[in-house]
Amino acid sequence: MEIYPSLVTVLTLFLYFILTINVGRARSKYNVSPPATTGNPNFERVLRVQQNTIEQMVLFFPLLWIFSLYVSPIWGAGIGGFWILGRIVYAWGYYQAAEKRILGFAIASLSSLVLLIGSLVGIILTFLK
Amino acid sequence: MEIYPSLVTVLTLFLYFILTINVGRARSKYNVSPPATTGNPNFERVLRVQQNTIEQMVLFFPLLWIFSLYVSPIWGAGIGGFWILGRIVYAWGYYQAAEKRILGFAIASLSSLVLLIGSLVGIILTFLK
Amino acid sequence: MEIYPSLVTVLTLFLYFILTINVGRARSKYNVSPPATTGNPNFERVLRVQQNTIEQMVLFFPLLWIFSLYVSPIWGAGIGGFWILGRIVYAWGYYQAAEKRILGFAIASLSSLVLLIGSLVGIILTFLK
Repeated sequence: MEIYPSLVTVLTLFLYFILTINVGRARSKYNVSPPATTGNPNFERVLRVQQNTIEQMVLFFPLLWIFSLYVSPIWGAGIGGFWILGRIVYAWGYYQAAEKRILGFAIASLSSLVLLIGSLVGIILTFLK
Repeated sequence: MEIYPSLVTVLTLFLYFILTINVGRARSKYNVSPPATTGNPNFERVLRVQQNTIEQMVLFFPLLWIFSLYVSPIWGAGIGGFWILGRIVYAWGYYQAAEKRILGFAIASLSSLVLLIGSLVGIILTFLK
Repeated sequence: MEIYPSLVTVLTLFLYFILTINVGRARSKYNVSPPATTGNPNFERVLRVQQNTIEQMVLFFPLLWIFSLYVSPIWGAGIGGFWILGRIVYAWGYYQAAEKRILGFAIASLSSLVLLIGSLVGIILTFLK
């Protein structure tokens, strides 16, 4: 059953690979040479998408797996699918304008919050047994 | 037995959720609009707390689990509890002043180092068996 | 058999520990006080090495383990060893000059890409069974 969260994990990493490639492309497009990470707001938005996605992945992977372990791998993978959707909406929104990052961020954050609360409840119920 | 490191993992993510909310609140309090990440030292400290905590989580989760697997889940979770305590002391210290981040950072780093050395020893002993 | 990816994970964390110590040393050497993260290009390169390594670790650990689970732990650990080698070449190259980060980055990225494609194929084949 762990195959469902495994698939969600790999699809997330696939999305992240694309976001990283986008940072490299934005570096040349907006002419921001390493190690600089600031200087052009268009580049900074593309970089922020990638950095925020990593940050959220650090949160997301443990939650996905602990929820899958203590509650349900199918539900875990389903909520994880929503999280990926939210991150896609976030990325392509933020690429256009800073204000357009809100919707996707909310979808992904809500998914993470559901996984967090579910994991905590699942662990407590397992303790009580 | 994996329930103890699971609980420590979820509690860490819960702490991280709070630190992320604090960044959002500091953005409006100190008036730093996305995608900017610099410009006000008070905001920068709050952001650095969150970013440093993520960085340390990337280190902490694998160490916690490998230590729990090869040495002891109860000891792993216990040392992990110290790590969380250290990160709390770090965060609320750094929120006040840059110098006050040292104590908590030392507690958490020492916990990570113990987990790292223990994991390495545990793996080597398993190899030798 | 999970001992091989475990060993690669711990060695990666050991490398990361060294890179983090290097950031602290560069802070005092180039006189960049927290919370500042910019101001001296020499310091910025040392910081970028550490930050880029974390980013890549977030990608690398799940790939290493899912590949080890669905394809082969020995091959997973072997490709993971190349990844570590790439990150070492990257770090000590980037410490010297921004252009010298390319070779190591390419080795590590190629290793990650092989793990990603292998994981995806491994999961799909498991589904079909």
